[in-house]
Amino acid sequence: MDASPVASTSETHGFQVLGAIEDRYDGMIVEADLLPSTVEEFRSRLEASILHWKAQGKKGIWLKLPLSHVDLVPTAIKAGFGYHHADPGYCMLTLWLPEVPSTLPANASHQVGVGAFLLNDAGEVLAVQEKNGPLRGTGIWKLPTGLANHGEDICAAAVREVKEETGIDAEFQEVLCFRQAHGIAHGKSDLFFVCALRALSHDITPQESEIADAKWLSLKSFREQPFFADRPLFRTMMDICAAQARGDYRGLRLCASGGDLQYQMYVGEVASDTLQDDTDTIKQPQ
Amino acid sequence: MDASPVASTSETHGFQVLGAIEDRYDGMIVEADLLPSTVEEFRSRLEASILHWKAQGKKGIWLKLPLSHVDLVPTAIKAGFGYHHADPGYCMLTLWLPEVPSTLPANASHQVGVGAFLLNDAGEVLAVQEKNGPLRGTGIWKLPTGLANHGEDICAAAVREVKEETGIDAEFQEVLCFRQAHGIAHGKSDLFFVCALRALSHDITPQESEIADAKWLSLKSFREQPFFADRPLFRTMMDICAAQARGDYRGLRLCASGGDLQYQMYVGEVASDTLQDDTDTIKQPQ
Repeated sequence: MDASPVASTSETHGFQVLGAIEDRYDGMIVEADLLPSTVEEFRSRLEASILHWKAQGKKGIWLKLPLSHVDLVPTAIKAGFGYHHADPGYCMLTLWLPEVPSTLPANASHQVGVGAFLLNDAGEVLAVQEKNGPLRGTGIWKLPTGLANHGEDICAAAVREVKEETGIDAEFQEVLCFRQAHGIAHGKSDLFFVCALRALSHDITPQESEIADAKWLSLKSFREQPFFADRPLFRTMMDICAAQARGDYRGLRLCASGGDLQYQMYVGEVASDTLQDDTDTIKQPQ
Repeated sequence: MDASPVASTSETHGFQVLGAIEDRYDGMIVEADLLPSTVEEFRSRLEASILHWKAQGKKGIWLKLPLSHVDLVPTAIKAGFGYHHADPGYCMLTLWLPEVPSTLPANASHQVGVGAFLLNDAGEVLAVQEKNGPLRGTGIWKLPTGLANHGEDICAAAVREVKEETGIDAEFQEVLCFRQAHGIAHGKSDLFFVCALRALSHDITPQESEIADAKWLSLKSFREQPFFADRPLFRTMMDICAAQARGDYRGLRLCASGGDLQYQMYVGEVASDTLQDDTDTIKQPQ
Protein backbone atom coordinates (compact mmCIF):
# COMPACT_ATOMS: atom_id res chain seq x y z
CA MET A 1 0.00 0.00 0.00
CA ASP A 2 1.30 3.47 -0.78
CA ALA A 3 1.89 5.46 2.37
CA SER A 4 3.73 8.50 3.56
CA PRO A 5 6.16 7.88 6.42
CA VAL A 6 4.37 10.16 8.89
CA ALA A 7 3.63 8.30 12.10
CA SER A 8 0.88 9.61 14.31
CA THR A 9 1.78 9.92 17.98
CA SER A 10 -1.18 11.92 19.27
CA GLU A 11 -2.89 11.38 22.58
CA THR A 12 -6.66 11.39 23.08
CA HIS A 13 -8.36 11.39 26.50
CA GLY A 14 -5.11 10.27 28.08
CA PHE A 15 -4.74 7.24 25.77
CA GLN A 16 -1.99 7.17 23.22
CA VAL A 17 -3.30 6.83 19.69
CA LEU A 18 -2.00 3.68 17.94
CA GLY A 19 1.08 4.14 15.79
CA ALA A 20 -0.14 4.58 12.22
CA ILE A 21 0.93 6.11 8.94
CA GLU A 22 -1.19 7.97 6.40
CA ASP A 23 -1.98 6.48 3.00
CA ARG A 24 -2.69 8.39 -0.22
CA TYR A 25 -6.43 7.99 0.15
CA ASP A 26 -6.95 9.89 3.43
CA GLY A 27 -6.73 6.64 5.33
CA MET A 28 -4.47 5.34 8.11
CA ILE A 29 -2.38 2.17 8.22
CA VAL A 30 -1.79 0.90 11.75
CA GLU A 31 1.82 -0.10 12.26
CA ALA A 32 2.01 -3.76 13.27
CA ASP A 33 5.45 -3.23 14.87
CA LEU A 34 4.02 -0.77 17.37
CA LEU A 35 0.96 -2.76 18.50
CA PRO A 36 0.40 -3.03 22.27
CA SER A 37 1.19 -6.41 23.74
CA THR A 38 -1.91 -6.80 25.93
CA VAL A 39 -5.50 -7.11 24.78
CA GLU A 40 -6.65 -4.58 27.40
CA GLU A 41 -4.21 -1.87 26.31
CA PHE A 42 -5.06 -2.55 22.67
CA ARG A 43 -8.78 -2.19 23.38
CA SER A 44 -8.36 1.19 25.11
CA ARG A 45 -5.97 2.63 22.58
CA LEU A 46 -7.98 1.33 19.61
CA GLU A 47 -11.14 3.01 20.89
CA ALA A 48 -9.27 6.28 21.49
CA SER A 49 -7.63 6.03 18.07
CA ILE A 50 -10.94 5.53 16.26
CA LEU A 51 -12.35 8.69 17.92
CA HIS A 52 -9.18 10.58 17.04
CA TRP A 53 -9.11 9.48 13.40
CA LYS A 54 -12.82 10.17 13.00
CA ALA A 55 -12.33 13.71 14.33
CA GLN A 56 -9.49 14.15 11.84
CA GLY A 57 -11.79 13.19 8.96
CA LYS A 58 -9.87 10.02 8.16
CA LYS A 59 -11.54 7.43 5.91
CA GLY A 60 -10.29 3.83 5.75
CA ILE A 61 -8.28 2.32 8.63
CA TRP A 62 -6.09 -0.70 7.83
CA LEU A 63 -5.12 -3.06 10.64
CA LYS A 64 -2.83 -5.97 9.78
CA LEU A 65 -2.57 -8.48 12.60
CA PRO A 66 0.20 -11.09 12.29
CA LEU A 67 -0.27 -14.55 13.79
CA SER A 68 1.64 -13.37 16.87
CA HIS A 69 -1.18 -10.88 17.52
CA VAL A 70 -4.14 -13.17 16.84
CA ASP A 71 -5.46 -12.43 20.35
CA LEU A 72 -6.29 -8.90 19.17
CA VAL A 73 -8.59 -10.06 16.35
CA PRO A 74 -11.77 -10.43 18.47
CA THR A 75 -11.17 -7.01 20.08
CA ALA A 76 -10.81 -5.31 16.70
CA ILE A 77 -13.94 -6.99 15.33
CA LYS A 78 -15.92 -5.88 18.40
CA ALA A 79 -14.61 -2.32 17.88
CA GLY A 80 -16.27 -2.33 14.45
CA PHE A 81 -13.53 -3.60 12.16
CA GLY A 82 -14.37 -6.19 9.52
CA TYR A 83 -12.30 -8.84 7.78
CA HIS A 84 -10.73 -7.53 4.57
CA HIS A 85 -8.69 -10.62 3.80
CA ALA A 86 -6.34 -13.12 5.39
CA ASP A 87 -3.38 -15.06 4.11
CA PRO A 88 -1.13 -17.59 5.81
CA GLY A 89 0.64 -15.49 8.43
CA TYR A 90 -1.74 -12.59 9.00
CA CYS A 91 -5.25 -11.24 8.99
CA MET A 92 -6.09 -7.82 7.49
CA LEU A 93 -8.95 -5.92 9.11
CA THR A 94 -10.46 -2.64 7.95
CA LEU A 95 -12.73 0.03 9.36
CA TRP A 96 -14.44 2.62 7.15
CA LEU A 97 -15.16 5.81 9.10
CA PRO A 98 -17.17 8.19 6.82
CA GLU A 99 -20.96 8.03 6.57
CA VAL A 100 -20.73 7.52 2.78
CA PRO A 101 -20.26 4.00 1.33
CA SER A 102 -16.79 2.50 1.53
CA THR A 103 -14.44 2.92 -1.41
CA LEU A 104 -11.81 0.56 0.00
CA PRO A 105 -10.60 -1.83 -2.73
CA ALA A 106 -11.70 -5.43 -2.28
CA ASN A 107 -9.22 -8.26 -2.00
CA ALA A 108 -8.21 -10.55 -4.87
CA SER A 109 -11.37 -11.95 -6.42
CA HIS A 110 -10.18 -14.50 -8.98
CA GLN A 111 -8.29 -17.75 -9.11
CA VAL A 112 -6.42 -18.35 -12.36
CA GLY A 113 -6.37 -21.71 -14.08
CA VAL A 114 -4.65 -22.93 -17.22
CA GLY A 115 -5.33 -25.69 -19.71
CA ALA A 116 -2.59 -26.86 -22.09
CA PHE A 117 -3.19 -27.89 -25.68
CA LEU A 118 -0.20 -29.76 -26.96
CA LEU A 119 0.31 -31.81 -30.13
CA ASN A 120 3.11 -34.21 -30.96
CA ASP A 121 4.66 -34.65 -34.41
CA ALA A 122 1.94 -37.16 -35.33
CA GLY A 123 -0.77 -34.57 -34.64
CA GLU A 124 -1.89 -36.33 -31.45
CA VAL A 125 -3.03 -34.36 -28.42
CA LEU A 126 -1.57 -34.81 -24.93
CA ALA A 127 -4.47 -36.12 -22.81
CA VAL A 128 -4.79 -37.11 -19.15
CA GLN A 129 -7.22 -38.83 -16.79
CA GLU A 130 -7.37 -37.44 -13.26
CA LYS A 131 -7.31 -39.32 -9.95
CA ASN A 132 -9.22 -36.62 -8.06
CA GLY A 133 -12.03 -34.18 -8.72
CA PRO A 134 -15.38 -34.55 -10.49
CA LEU A 135 -14.02 -36.50 -13.49
CA ARG A 136 -12.22 -39.23 -11.53
CA GLY A 137 -13.24 -42.70 -12.52
CA THR A 138 -15.18 -41.53 -15.58
CA GLY A 139 -12.60 -42.54 -18.20
CA ILE A 140 -12.76 -39.08 -19.75
CA TRP A 141 -9.60 -37.82 -21.41
CA LYS A 142 -8.91 -34.15 -20.81
CA LEU A 143 -6.23 -31.54 -21.40
CA PRO A 144 -3.69 -31.11 -18.60
CA THR A 145 -5.01 -28.32 -16.37
CA GLY A 146 -4.21 -26.68 -13.07
CA LEU A 147 -4.23 -23.53 -11.01
CA ALA A 148 -1.49 -20.92 -11.32
CA ASN A 149 0.64 -20.67 -8.21
CA HIS A 150 1.04 -17.48 -6.21
CA GLY A 151 2.92 -14.99 -8.39
CA GLU A 152 3.19 -17.35 -11.35
CA ASP A 153 2.82 -16.20 -14.97
CA ILE A 154 0.08 -17.86 -17.00
CA CYS A 155 2.57 -19.01 -19.63
CA ALA A 156 4.81 -20.55 -16.95
CA ALA A 157 1.88 -22.23 -15.19
CA ALA A 158 0.86 -24.01 -18.41
CA VAL A 159 4.41 -25.31 -19.00
CA ARG A 160 4.74 -26.39 -15.34
CA GLU A 161 1.40 -28.24 -15.24
CA VAL A 162 2.27 -30.21 -18.39
CA LYS A 163 5.66 -31.14 -16.95
CA GLU A 164 4.22 -32.13 -13.55
CA GLU A 165 1.28 -34.14 -14.86
CA THR A 166 2.97 -35.89 -17.80
CA GLY A 167 6.73 -35.33 -17.65
CA ILE A 168 6.59 -33.69 -21.09
CA ASP A 169 8.82 -30.65 -21.70
CA ALA A 170 7.07 -27.92 -23.62
CA GLU A 171 7.28 -24.27 -24.54
CA PHE A 172 4.48 -21.73 -24.45
CA GLN A 173 3.06 -20.56 -27.77
CA GLU A 174 -0.06 -18.47 -27.14
CA VAL A 175 -3.26 -17.96 -25.17
CA LEU A 176 -6.02 -19.26 -27.45
CA CYS A 177 -9.06 -18.15 -25.50
CA PHE A 178 -10.19 -17.66 -21.92
CA ARG A 179 -13.27 -18.19 -19.83
CA GLN A 180 -14.49 -16.23 -16.82
CA ALA A 181 -16.90 -17.87 -14.37
CA HIS A 182 -18.24 -16.90 -10.96
CA GLY A 183 -19.14 -18.59 -7.69
CA ILE A 184 -16.39 -21.20 -7.94
CA ALA A 185 -14.11 -21.62 -4.89
CA HIS A 186 -15.48 -20.03 -1.69
CA GLY A 187 -17.75 -17.93 -3.92
CA LYS A 188 -14.82 -16.42 -5.80
CA SER A 189 -14.45 -16.12 -9.58
CA ASP A 190 -12.27 -18.10 -11.95
CA LEU A 191 -10.37 -17.20 -15.09
CA PHE A 192 -9.32 -20.18 -17.20
CA PHE A 193 -6.81 -19.65 -20.01
CA VAL A 194 -6.50 -22.26 -22.77
CA CYS A 195 -2.87 -22.17 -23.90
CA ALA A 196 -1.25 -23.69 -26.97
CA LEU A 197 2.15 -25.22 -26.19
CA ARG A 198 4.79 -26.85 -28.35
CA ALA A 199 6.07 -30.24 -27.19
CA LEU A 200 9.83 -30.50 -26.70
CA SER A 201 9.82 -34.16 -25.66
CA HIS A 202 7.67 -37.22 -26.38
CA ASP A 203 7.85 -39.83 -23.60
CA ILE A 204 5.10 -39.59 -21.01
CA THR A 205 5.54 -40.20 -17.27
CA PRO A 206 2.17 -39.74 -15.54
CA GLN A 207 2.27 -37.95 -12.19
CA GLU A 208 1.79 -40.49 -9.37
CA SER A 209 -0.36 -38.39 -7.04
CA GLU A 210 -2.88 -36.76 -9.38
CA ILE A 211 -2.91 -38.50 -12.76
CA ALA A 212 -4.50 -41.92 -13.34
CA ASP A 213 -3.27 -42.12 -16.94
CA ALA A 214 -1.77 -39.94 -19.67
CA LYS A 215 -1.23 -40.58 -23.37
CA TRP A 216 -1.06 -39.13 -26.85
CA LEU A 217 -4.52 -39.43 -28.37
CA SER A 218 -5.70 -38.58 -31.86
CA LEU A 219 -7.35 -35.17 -31.89
CA LYS A 220 -10.36 -36.76 -33.59
CA SER A 221 -10.81 -39.38 -30.83
CA PHE A 222 -10.28 -36.75 -28.19
CA ARG A 223 -12.97 -34.45 -29.59
CA GLU A 224 -15.46 -37.21 -30.25
CA GLN A 225 -15.74 -38.21 -26.58
CA PRO A 226 -19.47 -38.25 -25.68
CA PHE A 227 -18.64 -36.04 -22.66
CA PHE A 228 -18.17 -33.05 -24.99
CA ALA A 229 -21.45 -33.55 -26.85
CA ASP A 230 -23.72 -31.44 -24.65
CA ARG A 231 -21.04 -29.13 -23.29
CA PRO A 232 -20.75 -26.10 -25.60
CA LEU A 233 -17.96 -24.59 -23.49
CA PHE A 234 -15.64 -27.55 -23.98
CA ARG A 235 -16.74 -28.03 -27.60
CA THR A 236 -15.86 -24.43 -28.42
CA MET A 237 -12.50 -24.75 -26.70
CA MET A 238 -11.71 -27.86 -28.73
CA ASP A 239 -12.89 -26.17 -31.95
CA ILE A 240 -10.46 -23.34 -31.23
CA CYS A 241 -7.64 -25.78 -30.49
CA ALA A 242 -8.31 -27.68 -33.72
CA ALA A 243 -8.41 -24.43 -35.70
CA GLN A 244 -5.08 -23.38 -34.20
CA ALA A 245 -3.62 -26.77 -35.13
CA ARG A 246 -4.79 -26.19 -38.73
CA GLY A 247 -3.20 -22.72 -38.76
CA ASP A 248 -6.64 -21.08 -39.01
CA TYR A 249 -6.49 -19.25 -35.70
CA ARG A 250 -4.33 -16.69 -33.97
CA GLY A 251 -4.53 -16.24 -30.21
CA LEU A 252 -2.76 -13.72 -28.00
CA ARG A 253 1.02 -14.03 -27.95
CA LEU A 254 3.48 -12.90 -25.33
CA CYS A 255 4.74 -9.39 -25.79
CA ALA A 256 8.09 -8.35 -24.33
CA SER A 257 7.74 -7.33 -20.72
CA GLY A 258 9.62 -4.53 -18.99
CA GLY A 259 9.18 -1.05 -17.56
CA ASP A 260 8.76 -0.19 -13.89
CA LEU A 261 6.52 -3.17 -13.37
CA GLN A 262 7.44 -6.78 -14.01
CA TYR A 263 4.61 -7.92 -16.21
CA GLN A 264 3.63 -10.22 -19.03
CA MET A 265 1.43 -8.84 -21.76
CA TYR A 266 -0.60 -10.94 -24.21
CA VAL A 267 -1.45 -9.32 -27.54
CA GLY A 268 -2.86 -10.38 -30.90
CA GLU A 269 -1.33 -9.88 -34.28
CA VAL A 270 -1.48 -6.44 -35.89
CA ALA A 271 -2.18 -6.73 -39.60
CA SER A 272 -0.19 -3.65 -40.53
CA ASP A 273 3.42 -2.94 -39.60
CA THR A 274 2.79 0.77 -39.23
CA LEU A 275 1.99 1.06 -35.55
CA GLN A 276 2.92 4.67 -34.85
CA ASP A 277 1.74 7.97 -36.32
CA ASP A 278 -1.07 6.39 -38.26
CA THR A 279 -3.95 7.93 -36.39
CA ASP A 280 -5.23 9.76 -39.47
CA THR A 281 -6.47 6.50 -40.94
CA ILE A 282 -8.84 5.51 -38.14
CA LYS A 283 -11.70 3.34 -39.21
CA GLN A 284 -14.84 3.96 -37.22
CA PRO A 285 -16.23 1.11 -35.14
CA GLN A 286 -19.33 -0.32 -36.79
CA MET B 1 -16.92 -27.09 -1.37
CA ASP B 2 -18.12 -30.51 -2.41
CA ALA B 3 -19.02 -32.61 0.59
CA SER B 4 -21.00 -35.66 1.51
CA PRO B 5 -23.68 -35.11 4.12
CA VAL B 6 -22.18 -37.51 6.67
CA ALA B 7 -21.78 -35.78 10.01
CA SER B 8 -19.24 -37.22 12.41
CA THR B 9 -20.47 -37.61 15.99
CA SER B 10 -17.66 -39.70 17.50
CA GLU B 11 -16.28 -39.30 20.98
CA THR B 12 -12.58 -39.34 21.87
CA HIS B 13 -11.28 -39.45 25.45
CA GLY B 14 -14.69 -38.36 26.69
CA PHE B 15 -14.82 -35.26 24.47
CA GLN B 16 -17.26 -35.06 21.63
CA VAL B 17 -15.59 -34.58 18.27
CA LEU B 18 -16.72 -31.40 16.51
CA GLY B 19 -19.54 -31.76 14.01
CA ALA B 20 -17.95 -32.07 10.58
CA ILE B 21 -18.68 -33.47 7.14
CA GLU B 22 -16.30 -35.23 4.76
CA ASP B 23 -15.16 -33.62 1.51
CA ARG B 24 -14.09 -35.39 -1.70
CA TYR B 25 -10.41 -35.03 -0.93
CA ASP B 26 -10.25 -37.05 2.34
CA GLY B 27 -10.69 -33.86 4.33
CA MET B 28 -13.22 -32.67 6.90
CA ILE B 29 -15.32 -29.50 6.91
CA VAL B 30 -16.27 -28.37 10.42
CA GLU B 31 -19.91 -27.38 10.59
CA ALA B 32 -20.23 -23.76 11.72
CA ASP B 33 -23.81 -24.35 12.92
CA LEU B 34 -22.65 -26.91 15.47
CA LEU B 35 -19.75 -24.97 16.99
CA PRO B 36 -19.59 -24.84 20.82
CA SER B 37 -20.52 -21.49 22.32
CA THR B 38 -17.68 -21.18 24.82
CA VAL B 39 -13.98 -20.85 24.08
CA GLU B 40 -13.13 -23.49 26.71
CA GLU B 41 -15.43 -26.15 25.26
CA PHE B 42 -14.19 -25.33 21.75
CA ARG B 43 -10.56 -25.73 22.85
CA SER B 44 -11.16 -29.17 24.40
CA ARG B 45 -13.26 -30.50 21.58
CA LEU B 46 -10.96 -29.11 18.87
CA GLU B 47 -7.92 -30.83 20.40
CA ALA B 48 -9.84 -34.12 20.68
CA SER B 49 -11.11 -33.72 17.12
CA ILE B 50 -7.64 -33.18 15.69
CA LEU B 51 -6.40 -36.38 17.36
CA HIS B 52 -9.45 -38.25 16.08
CA TRP B 53 -9.14 -37.01 12.48
CA LYS B 54 -5.40 -37.67 12.45
CA ALA B 55 -6.01 -41.26 13.59
CA GLN B 56 -8.57 -41.61 10.81
CA GLY B 57 -6.00 -40.53 8.21
CA LYS B 58 -7.84 -37.33 7.32
CA LYS B 59 -5.95 -34.68 5.38
CA GLY B 60 -7.19 -31.09 5.23
CA ILE B 61 -9.49 -29.67 7.93
CA TRP B 62 -11.59 -26.62 7.02
CA LEU B 63 -12.86 -24.38 9.81
CA LYS B 64 -15.05 -21.43 8.81
CA LEU B 65 -15.63 -19.02 11.71
CA PRO B 66 -18.34 -16.40 11.18
CA LEU B 67 -18.05 -13.00 12.88
CA SER B 68 -20.28 -14.30 15.68
CA HIS B 69 -17.54 -16.81 16.54
CA VAL B 70 -14.52 -14.49 16.27
CA ASP B 71 -13.58 -15.37 19.87
CA LEU B 72 -12.63 -18.85 18.65
CA VAL B 73 -10.03 -17.60 16.13
CA PRO B 74 -7.10 -17.32 18.59
CA THR B 75 -7.86 -20.78 19.99
CA ALA B 76 -7.84 -22.36 16.53
CA ILE B 77 -4.60 -20.63 15.56
CA LYS B 78 -2.95 -21.86 18.78
CA ALA B 79 -4.19 -25.38 17.99
CA GLY B 80 -2.18 -25.26 14.76
CA PHE B 81 -4.67 -23.90 12.24
CA GLY B 82 -3.56 -21.21 9.81
CA TYR B 83 -5.44 -18.50 7.95
CA HIS B 84 -6.65 -19.68 4.55
CA HIS B 85 -8.62 -16.57 3.68
CA ALA B 86 -11.12 -14.11 5.12
CA ASP B 87 -13.94 -12.12 3.61
CA PRO B 88 -16.34 -9.66 5.16
CA GLY B 89 -18.39 -11.85 7.49
CA TYR B 90 -16.09 -14.77 8.18
CA CYS B 91 -12.58 -16.14 8.50
CA MET B 92 -11.58 -19.49 6.96
CA LEU B 93 -8.91 -21.46 8.79
CA THR B 94 -7.27 -24.69 7.67
CA LEU B 95 -5.16 -27.42 9.21
CA TRP B 96 -3.21 -29.92 7.09
CA LEU B 97 -2.69 -33.20 8.97
CA PRO B 98 -0.43 -35.48 6.84
CA GLU B 99 3.37 -35.30 6.98
CA VAL B 100 3.51 -34.64 3.22
CA PRO B 101 3.20 -31.08 1.85
CA SER B 102 -0.29 -29.59 1.76
CA THR B 103 -2.30 -29.89 -1.44
CA LEU B 104 -5.09 -27.58 -0.24
CA PRO B 105 -6.00 -25.10 -2.95
CA ALA B 106 -4.94 -21.52 -2.26
CA ASN B 107 -7.44 -18.69 -2.15
CA ALA B 108 -8.15 -16.29 -5.00
CA SER B 109 -4.83 -14.80 -6.14
CA HIS B 110 -5.76 -12.14 -8.68
CA GLN B 111 -7.63 -8.89 -8.83
CA VAL B 112 -9.15 -8.09 -12.22
CA GLY B 113 -9.03 -4.64 -13.75
CA VAL B 114 -10.38 -3.24 -16.99
CA GLY B 115 -9.45 -0.33 -19.23
CA ALA B 116 -11.92 0.96 -21.81
CA PHE B 117 -10.91 2.20 -25.28
CA LEU B 118 -13.77 4.14 -26.75
CA LEU B 119 -13.93 6.39 -29.83
CA ASN B 120 -16.62 8.86 -30.83
CA ASP B 121 -17.80 9.51 -34.41
CA ALA B 122 -14.99 12.05 -34.87
CA GLY B 123 -12.38 9.40 -34.03
CA GLU B 124 -11.62 10.97 -30.66
CA VAL B 125 -10.80 8.84 -27.63
CA LEU B 126 -12.63 9.08 -24.31
CA ALA B 127 -9.98 10.26 -21.81
CA VAL B 128 -10.07 11.04 -18.10
CA GLN B 129 -7.92 12.61 -15.39
CA GLU B 130 -8.16 11.03 -11.95
CA LYS B 131 -8.57 12.72 -8.57
CA ASN B 132 -6.86 9.90 -6.65
CA GLY B 133 -4.01 7.50 -7.11
CA PRO B 134 -0.48 7.94 -8.47
CA LEU B 135 -1.50 10.08 -11.48
CA ARG B 136 -3.51 12.69 -9.58
CA GLY B 137 -2.40 16.24 -10.24
CA THR B 138 -0.15 15.22 -13.13
CA GLY B 139 -2.43 16.39 -15.96
CA ILE B 140 -2.09 13.02 -17.68
CA TRP B 141 -5.05 11.85 -19.77
CA LYS B 142 -5.78 8.15 -19.45
CA LEU B 143 -8.38 5.59 -20.47
CA PRO B 144 -11.22 5.00 -17.99
CA THR B 145 -10.13 2.10 -15.79
CA GLY B 146 -11.30 0.28 -12.70
CA LEU B 147 -11.49 -2.99 -10.84
CA ALA B 148 -14.17 -5.56 -11.59
CA ASN B 149 -16.64 -5.98 -8.76
CA HIS B 150 -17.24 -9.27 -6.99
CA GLY B 151 -18.85 -11.64 -9.50
CA GLU B 152 -18.81 -9.12 -12.34
CA ASP B 153 -18.04 -10.07 -15.95
CA ILE B 154 -15.09 -8.31 -17.56
CA CYS B 155 -17.28 -7.01 -20.38
CA ALA B 156 -19.81 -5.61 -17.88
CA ALA B 157 -17.10 -4.03 -15.73
CA ALA B 158 -15.74 -2.07 -18.70
CA VAL B 159 -19.20 -0.73 -19.61
CA ARG B 160 -19.93 0.14 -15.96
CA GLU B 161 -16.64 1.98 -15.39
CA VAL B 162 -17.16 4.12 -18.50
CA LYS B 163 -20.69 4.98 -17.38
CA GLU B 164 -19.62 5.78 -13.80
CA GLU B 165 -16.57 7.86 -14.67
CA THR B 166 -17.93 9.77 -17.67
CA GLY B 167 -21.68 9.21 -17.96
CA ILE B 168 -21.16 7.76 -21.45
CA ASP B 169 -23.31 4.79 -22.48
CA ALA B 170 -21.35 2.14 -24.34
CA GLU B 171 -21.45 -1.45 -25.51
CA PHE B 172 -18.66 -3.99 -25.23
CA GLN B 173 -16.88 -4.99 -28.45
CA GLU B 174 -13.85 -7.13 -27.59
CA VAL B 175 -10.88 -7.75 -25.31
CA LEU B 176 -7.90 -6.34 -27.19
CA CYS B 177 -5.07 -7.56 -24.98
CA PHE B 178 -4.34 -8.26 -21.35
CA ARG B 179 -1.51 -7.84 -18.89
CA GLN B 180 -0.62 -9.97 -15.87
CA ALA B 181 1.51 -8.49 -13.10
CA HIS B 182 2.47 -9.64 -9.63
CA GLY B 183 3.01 -8.11 -6.20
CA ILE B 184 0.31 -5.50 -6.63
CA ALA B 185 -2.31 -5.22 -3.85
CA HIS B 186 -1.30 -6.95 -0.60
CA GLY B 187 1.22 -8.96 -2.64
CA LYS B 188 -1.48 -10.37 -4.93
CA SER B 189 -1.44 -10.49 -8.72
CA ASP B 190 -3.36 -8.39 -11.19
CA LEU B 191 -4.93 -9.10 -14.57
CA PHE B 192 -5.75 -6.01 -16.60
CA PHE B 193 -7.93 -6.37 -19.69
CA VAL B 194 -7.94 -3.60 -22.33
CA CYS B 195 -11.42 -3.62 -23.85
CA ALA B 196 -12.70 -1.92 -27.00
CA LEU B 197 -16.15 -0.42 -26.51
CA ARG B 198 -18.55 1.33 -28.84
CA ALA B 199 -19.96 4.66 -27.63
CA LEU B 200 -23.76 4.91 -27.56
CA SER B 201 -23.88 8.52 -26.32
CA HIS B 202 -21.68 11.59 -26.63
CA ASP B 203 -22.16 14.06 -23.75
CA ILE B 204 -19.70 13.64 -20.88
CA THR B 205 -20.55 14.06 -17.18
CA PRO B 206 -17.40 13.48 -15.13
CA GLN B 207 -17.86 11.51 -11.91
CA GLU B 208 -17.70 13.88 -8.93
CA SER B 209 -15.81 11.66 -6.51
CA GLU B 210 -13.04 10.14 -8.63
CA ILE B 211 -12.65 12.08 -11.88
CA ALA B 212 -11.01 15.53 -12.08
CA ASP B 213 -11.83 15.93 -15.77
CA ALA B 214 -13.01 13.90 -18.76
CA LYS B 215 -13.16 14.76 -22.46
CA TRP B 216 -12.95 13.51 -26.03
CA LEU B 217 -9.34 13.88 -27.14
CA SER B 218 -7.78 13.24 -30.54
CA LEU B 219 -6.11 9.82 -30.56
CA LYS B 220 -2.94 11.49 -31.82
CA SER B 221 -2.81 13.95 -28.89
CA PHE B 222 -3.61 11.18 -26.47
CA ARG B 223 -0.78 8.93 -27.70
CA GLU B 224 1.76 11.73 -27.91
CA GLN B 225 1.63 12.52 -24.20
CA PRO B 226 5.23 12.49 -22.88
CA PHE B 227 4.10 10.11 -20.13
CA PHE B 228 3.89 7.27 -22.66
CA ALA B 229 7.37 7.87 -24.12
CA ASP B 230 9.38 5.61 -21.80
CA ARG B 231 6.57 3.24 -20.88
CA PRO B 232 6.53 0.36 -23.36
CA LEU B 233 3.53 -1.26 -21.65
CA PHE B 234 1.28 1.72 -22.22
CA ARG B 235 2.76 2.41 -25.66
CA THR B 236 1.97 -1.13 -26.77
CA MET B 237 -1.55 -0.89 -25.40
CA MET B 238 -2.12 2.32 -27.34
CA ASP B 239 -0.59 0.81 -30.50
CA ILE B 240 -3.08 -2.05 -30.22
CA CYS B 241 -5.96 0.36 -29.65
CA ALA B 242 -4.95 2.43 -32.68
CA ALA B 243 -4.63 -0.69 -34.82
CA GLN B 244 -8.09 -1.81 -33.76
CA ALA B 245 -9.44 1.63 -34.64
CA ARG B 246 -7.89 1.27 -38.13
CA GLY B 247 -9.45 -2.20 -38.55
CA ASP B 248 -6.00 -3.83 -38.48
CA TYR B 249 -6.52 -5.84 -35.33
CA ARG B 250 -8.85 -8.49 -33.98
CA GLY B 251 -9.05 -9.18 -30.25
CA LEU B 252 -11.06 -11.82 -28.41
CA ARG B 253 -14.83 -11.50 -28.76
CA LEU B 254 -17.55 -12.76 -26.48
CA CYS B 255 -18.75 -16.24 -27.26
CA ALA B 256 -22.24 -17.32 -26.22
CA SER B 257 -22.29 -18.54 -22.65
CA GLY B 258 -24.31 -21.43 -21.30
CA GLY B 259 -24.01 -24.98 -20.04
CA ASP B 260 -24.00 -26.05 -16.41
CA LEU B 261 -21.83 -23.13 -15.45
CA GLN B 262 -22.68 -19.50 -15.99
CA TYR B 263 -19.62 -18.25 -17.82
CA GLN B 264 -18.37 -15.80 -20.40
CA MET B 265 -15.89 -17.04 -22.95
CA TYR B 266 -13.62 -14.81 -25.04
CA VAL B 267 -12.39 -16.22 -28.35
CA GLY B 268 -10.63 -14.98 -31.45
CA GLU B 269 -11.79 -15.29 -35.01
CA VAL B 270 -11.46 -18.61 -36.78
CA ALA B 271 -10.34 -18.11 -40.36
CA SER B 272 -12.23 -21.12 -41.68
CA ASP B 273 -15.91 -21.88 -41.18
CA THR B 274 -15.31 -25.61 -40.98
CA LEU B 275 -14.92 -26.12 -37.25
CA GLN B 276 -15.87 -29.77 -36.89
CA ASP B 277 -14.52 -32.95 -38.45
CA ASP B 278 -11.52 -31.25 -39.93
CA THR B 279 -8.86 -32.94 -37.86
CA ASP B 280 -7.26 -34.56 -40.89
CA THR B 281 -5.86 -31.23 -42.00
CA ILE B 282 -3.82 -30.44 -38.91
CA LYS B 283 -0.86 -28.24 -39.53
CA GLN B 284 2.05 -29.00 -37.25
CA PRO B 285 3.19 -26.30 -34.85
CA GLN B 286 6.45 -24.76 -36.05
